[in-house]
Amino acid sequence: MDRPRFVIEAAEAESFAQKSGLTIHQLLPTLVKSAKTLARPPISNYHVGAVGLGSSGRIFFGGNIEFPGLPLHHSVHAEQFLVTNLILNAEPRLQCFAVSSAPCGHCRQFLQEIRNSSDIKICVTSSDENTKQQQEDHGCNYYTLSHFLPDRFGPDDLLEKDVPLILETHQNGLSFVSDNDDDGGYDKCCNGEASESLKFAALEAANKSHAPYSKCPSGVAIMDSEGKVYKGSYMESAAYNPSLGPVQAALVAYVASGNGGGYERIVDAVLVEKEGAVVRQEHTARLLLQVISPKCQFKVFHCKRASF
Amino acid sequence: MDRPRFVIEAAEAESFAQKSGLTIHQLLPTLVKSAKTLARPPISNYHVGAVGLGSSGRIFFGGNIEFPGLPLHHSVHAEQFLVTNLILNAEPRLQCFAVSSAPCGHCRQFLQEIRNSSDIKICVTSSDENTKQQQEDHGCNYYTLSHFLPDRFGPDDLLEKDVPLILETHQNGLSFVSDNDDDGGYDKCCNGEASESLKFAALEAANKSHAPYSKCPSGVAIMDSEGKVYKGSYMESAAYNPSLGPVQAALVAYVASGNGGGYERIVDAVLVEKEGAVVRQEHTARLLLQVISPKCQFKVFHCKRASF
Repeated sequence: MDRPRFVIEAAEAESFAQKSGLTIHQLLPTLVKSAKTLARPPISNYHVGAVGLGSSGRIFFGGNIEFPGLPLHHSVHAEQFLVTNLILNAEPRLQCFAVSSAPCGHCRQFLQEIRNSSDIKICVTSSDENTKQQQEDHGCNYYTLSHFLPDRFGPDDLLEKDVPLILETHQNGLSFVSDNDDDGGYDKCCNGEASESLKFAALEAANKSHAPYSKCPSGVAIMDSEGKVYKGSYMESAAYNPSLGPVQAALVAYVASGNGGGYERIVDAVLVEKEGAVVRQEHTARLLLQVISPKCQFKVFHCKRASF
Repeated sequence: MDRPRFVIEAAEAESFAQKSGLTIHQLLPTLVKSAKTLARPPISNYHVGAVGLGSSGRIFFGGNIEFPGLPLHHSVHAEQFLVTNLILNAEPRLQCFAVSSAPCGHCRQFLQEIRNSSDIKICVTSSDENTKQQQEDHGCNYYTLSHFLPDRFGPDDLLEKDVPLILETHQNGLSFVSDNDDDGGYDKCCNGEASESLKFAALEAANKSHAPYSKCPSGVAIMDSEGKVYKGSYMESAAYNPSLGPVQAALVAYVASGNGGGYERIVDAVLVEKEGAVVRQEHTARLLLQVISPKCQFKVFHCKRASF
């Protein structure tokens, strides 16, 4: 098996742990080195790997991604990759994860968007304490997210309890603005003939978007040169800046497919967002795609929801 | 005095505290309400105010800024405004600050770029504990930044000890790429006649930029319709995403001037950055300026440093 792996099935994870004489919690830190090889950080060359356990027993991988030629806020952190990977695989809960470097504040904040995030347990494999323990007895200390980000600012400060969070089901109820709509605005289709499948894939991603703060959900679908489609849903943070853009989420799906290809293989992309959105992804999405895949087509379609 | 104030001189701060029968540490939380009125958050309408004490005894204000029509990563948090305000006033050290809401992880991370940041003391005025104490006896509990972000990832993980951090003197030694330079690349001046003063103001800002991770410093100078110039230096975070863009920093200078004007009064802007920079601000800077001040001119000049 040459392809890098981003998910390990529950039975295989269990079997792997047993063979190694480890518990699953002890196994995760041993996989971090492998997760680091999945990262794509051409600016920093600082590879971060994260390995998480879902409630299904499956193990998920994540690595950091950076995009040269753009400001650093376009970067995707390993923990954000990990969470997006859980979403791609419809995993309802992240129980714990091991990561190669101490999570930065940006990631600690992003993780707040998960229900009961305070209980997520984190093991930093590079910490002096854990480096020593691993050498001695495969031990690794996990601490809760509430340890890493006490007195947090998060969804509880802004949302009602029944609003779905990340990893929970979102049904934003969006549909396309009809062609006969007389709202005006910019072109609904920038050029060329839209691939209907790509358009509806992006709408599906927008419908799963987590945007309870701005109420401006969005989704992106990208297609590679083999016609394979990858979807990404915009994910918002209560603290705004740690939000993950829809193109970034789609690129995680592309990387996590394990084909190992470069971004230049992305040939077509569609963004779906609300018309006149106060948080608008169009320009930034186009910019990112132009830089990483200059020949990629890019189209924007608008959607609406009656109650938004 | 009608203009909003963003700095209080040391003598005045001392006198104000004495008259109120408060210590300076007790005074800061009482000013947070006033700081909140300085914020410009048209997306969230969630006003955050931060009030900090510098080592000179001066008091500095900060508020959050949001930009409709763009992704949320363009936002400036109140704590980032506060730090930029200290830089604008050449304040060497932030001792403590009071803030209206718990600092988000993104800000806790951004603050790591200050030397000995762990010792910065923070009072969250909205916390239940402090709300009660303020009502009773003007008390307010401060906790160190290391309490808010334990086991941090920060400059220590990546930089040598002698590399200057935020609030310390930066002399990046940049100069313009000469017109006779045969490096090619994109236009050095996009259109129109460059204002020499604006160009050199932007170079000065780039020379003060904190970009030790990517080694891609940049600076922006903007001019308002009265010909007044505001400079902004790019500030990088060890964790990448919490970095503050040079246009954002210049807009903080514009807002902190207290003129109370809208962004449409910004008529000219210059960005200085390295040619072929791996972290490149040009496109994002243009995008932000186009959205907030569509008629603003924007020019880009390239700089270089031998040792970079």
